[in-house]
Amino acid sequence: MEFTAQQIADLLQGQVEGDPQVKVNRLSKIEEGEPGSLTFLANPKYEEFIYTTGASLVIVGDQFIPEKSISTSLVRVKDPYKSFAVLLETYNKISMAREGREEPVHVAASAKIGENTYMGAFVYIGENSVIGNRVKLYPGVYIGDQVEIGDDTVLFPGVKVYSQCKIGKDCRIHAGVVIGGDGFGFAPQDDSNYMKVAQIGNVIVEDHVEIGSNTTIDRATLGSTIIRKGVKLDNLIQVAHNVEIGEHTVIAAQTGIAGSTKIGRFCMIGGQVGIVGHLVIADKVKIAAQSGIGTSITREGEIVQGSPAFFIGDYKKSYVGFRKLPELSAKIEELEKQLRELKENNHG
Amino acid sequence: MEFTAQQIADLLQGQVEGDPQVKVNRLSKIEEGEPGSLTFLANPKYEEFIYTTGASLVIVGDQFIPEKSISTSLVRVKDPYKSFAVLLETYNKISMAREGREEPVHVAASAKIGENTYMGAFVYIGENSVIGNRVKLYPGVYIGDQVEIGDDTVLFPGVKVYSQCKIGKDCRIHAGVVIGGDGFGFAPQDDSNYMKVAQIGNVIVEDHVEIGSNTTIDRATLGSTIIRKGVKLDNLIQVAHNVEIGEHTVIAAQTGIAGSTKIGRFCMIGGQVGIVGHLVIADKVKIAAQSGIGTSITREGEIVQGSPAFFIGDYKKSYVGFRKLPELSAKIEELEKQLRELKENNHG
Amino acid sequence: MEFTAQQIADLLQGQVEGDPQVKVNRLSKIEEGEPGSLTFLANPKYEEFIYTTGASLVIVGDQFIPEKSISTSLVRVKDPYKSFAVLLETYNKISMAREGREEPVHVAASAKIGENTYMGAFVYIGENSVIGNRVKLYPGVYIGDQVEIGDDTVLFPGVKVYSQCKIGKDCRIHAGVVIGGDGFGFAPQDDSNYMKVAQIGNVIVEDHVEIGSNTTIDRATLGSTIIRKGVKLDNLIQVAHNVEIGEHTVIAAQTGIAGSTKIGRFCMIGGQVGIVGHLVIADKVKIAAQSGIGTSITREGEIVQGSPAFFIGDYKKSYVGFRKLPELSAKIEELEKQLRELKENNHG
Repeated sequence: MEFTAQQIADLLQGQVEGDPQVKVNRLSKIEEGEPGSLTFLANPKYEEFIYTTGASLVIVGDQFIPEKSISTSLVRVKDPYKSFAVLLETYNKISMAREGREEPVHVAASAKIGENTYMGAFVYIGENSVIGNRVKLYPGVYIGDQVEIGDDTVLFPGVKVYSQCKIGKDCRIHAGVVIGGDGFGFAPQDDSNYMKVAQIGNVIVEDHVEIGSNTTIDRATLGSTIIRKGVKLDNLIQVAHNVEIGEHTVIAAQTGIAGSTKIGRFCMIGGQVGIVGHLVIADKVKIAAQSGIGTSITREGEIVQGSPAFFIGDYKKSYVGFRKLPELSAKIEELEKQLRELKENNHG
Repeated sequence: MEFTAQQIADLLQGQVEGDPQVKVNRLSKIEEGEPGSLTFLANPKYEEFIYTTGASLVIVGDQFIPEKSISTSLVRVKDPYKSFAVLLETYNKISMAREGREEPVHVAASAKIGENTYMGAFVYIGENSVIGNRVKLYPGVYIGDQVEIGDDTVLFPGVKVYSQCKIGKDCRIHAGVVIGGDGFGFAPQDDSNYMKVAQIGNVIVEDHVEIGSNTTIDRATLGSTIIRKGVKLDNLIQVAHNVEIGEHTVIAAQTGIAGSTKIGRFCMIGGQVGIVGHLVIADKVKIAAQSGIGTSITREGEIVQGSPAFFIGDYKKSYVGFRKLPELSAKIEELEKQLRELKENNHG
Repeated sequence: MEFTAQQIADLLQGQVEGDPQVKVNRLSKIEEGEPGSLTFLANPKYEEFIYTTGASLVIVGDQFIPEKSISTSLVRVKDPYKSFAVLLETYNKISMAREGREEPVHVAASAKIGENTYMGAFVYIGENSVIGNRVKLYPGVYIGDQVEIGDDTVLFPGVKVYSQCKIGKDCRIHAGVVIGGDGFGFAPQDDSNYMKVAQIGNVIVEDHVEIGSNTTIDRATLGSTIIRKGVKLDNLIQVAHNVEIGEHTVIAAQTGIAGSTKIGRFCMIGGQVGIVGHLVIADKVKIAAQSGIGTSITREGEIVQGSPAFFIGDYKKSYVGFRKLPELSAKIEELEKQLRELKENNHG
């Protein structure tokens, strides 16, 4: 895979400045550029590197005015970051292209497999499951019975999808993810033991969802745990039974959402957040990392922090107070002392 | 699987009210009921739905008195929630029933396999391991050498059990769980490097334990990490080497317990809790989500919150104070100012 | 494997006190010692057990002076803890010794496999990958394309290493670990959707690294996520794209490090810590469990706690204040009342 500056410019609808015939064969960061590599400058913080980079070609904004001379060739585009993302994606698609079936696999006779799929070795597909076109199942993926996987979805190595779950189109599910494990439901018994509440619902993952490595999404007790279209989940996240996560919500690593909570659309949830069960979180809510959410958030766009969380501006003020607490305690003691003296003087 | 209202009533030792011949073939939530579905009403909050549900049959308490007319048939039982759980479990058992050996598997010649087991494709069983009767090993399960698995236990896809570990009867271990990985033990060396402390103990999981997806339980350095009977662990929990968790304790997702800590019986531990090593936690202790436990809890039934945690009532009061800290700071400043003025006046 | 006290003493360069011919065949804790077992006494807290232990042989320090009579034989060494660790490691090496290839496996024809390796059943090795000498790949390990694994490294069951990642020599990667999944990068679009930023970098794990079960390490967007030599990561840790962790740093379970953060050398990071992206943490920094790091730490050896974290001594004082907040509030109210009375008296 080698491209000229002109080919890159044509792909990105940009203009070459410098040598249109210079060739590049890989992508790099601007500070790590070497001859043959293509990079980009989007963040002005990195501008200094464009004057010294060893890269053969740099994508820059059409407004960019160099302050010093530049030895490398340029491709000018409207949005260098997006253009570079397009290149990354193209590169990625080429390097991930694969098709066919490796051996051994275990595919139930009743399963329906679409066209142009990739099925790695040690893949398991259960009874009556339906796998869409161009689906890639990496080695060691487990698909239970009556599962549906939509077109163009990629399941990386060792993903496990329990029976009856449904995954939409164009999803990427990373290695070690578990979809459809039993929800955590136990009914206390008279003798202080617990009786398991059987979990017979499923998980529905809609289209264009990405799920990070080793994240777990439990099946519903009844009905469905639902991940709406466009949701992005990072690694090691816990999604409990009957949770619903609204469209295009983004959640960072190690966050946990307890049973039956309903998260709105376009929310941004930081890492290591805990959300208790049976809550409703409004659309566009932002939750700072490590926060604990104990009550529903009804106002769209609310931004919260703390455990339990409240409005982030107030939290920050309270935390300033927390840091000053030893000082505040000392002031109170001093006030008590002065007041005592004053009283004694008054009586004196 | 289709049942009449009368058959359901017989199974649950209840009475039919309405048409004993109405047929149901699936379970649903009361608010999502459709013709042919069976549901239940336990929580009075959901009572409104019984008047409008499309379900063909509803399990209700024998004390339930409708406020409006009901078009669906009823089965009256003593405890509708428990009865429904029984039905779920029955449904679940039928749908999970499987037996036999799929290919390929790798089973050591020295391993002993019980009767009526299920062994999915790509299962691995090491030397001298003993698998009980009716055990289900889903595809991709790994069992090391000299492992014991008790009767009726289910290991879901991709569970890994390292050598020498023992799992009791009637356990359910969910996908991706790792039992018996090395404990995290390193002895600092003179040169600031670390020397690994080999971990040669094992993990013992007693009977009736449930372990959620991708939870990790480390083997002991020496001796055993022990999960006592009836313990319920949610997903993504970390149990370090030489920990012991007492009977029937329930732990929510993403909690971590550091090395050699001993947790009592019937404890309830929330999600994302951290417990440091070498502690003892008394029986029936409750720990709020996201708490950090830095010292032993000796009083049975204690309820704590915070990081570090203390009595939950006190924590909540302190947190009220935390939220008011900016206000308290302002009050102190005001007091200082007034006192200054007062003094000046006194001297004036 | 049975050894005499004299053989143990020779191995550890120690002296026997008691019967040099007494035989031991297993290791135990001092409080669980039985005839035939070998144990050690390093921590004076456990001294009482040496007078009652059933163990046949105890390793003790050369300075140890018994206060009562001891019935068991002793081996005196300079550092009993280290000596015992040596024994554990020896025991472990013997019990882990394995070589050869089980069936079925899937190994690309272009892959290069070193000498004396172990390859368990259901192992997958992709195109052009290079596996060093004496490497152990336990059952179900997945190695993508163009991966390098250094000599003597052990990958436990179900480890997944994505394409292009490099793992050094003498590493131990525990079950379920995912190395090289996509970093969590999404560029917001005009229509509030997200466009995935393709992740085409890799992960480099240097020599002598240990990684605990189900930990996830994401590949870099460009360039490399780097785990330097001697790093020890516990279970269920999240390492995001482009992070670098310095030599010999130790991190406890369930900690998460966001994208592009650079952690120094010889740091000690507690469990459930969260570190935001694009920070720099100096060498030898210590971070208390459950802390949240929101800004870079520039001072070598700094010790911090809290969320957001600050100097641990100050945190502890602030937390004392937090616990007393209800009391402080009451004091402030009392001061306000007294001041009011005083003023009224002055005016009276």
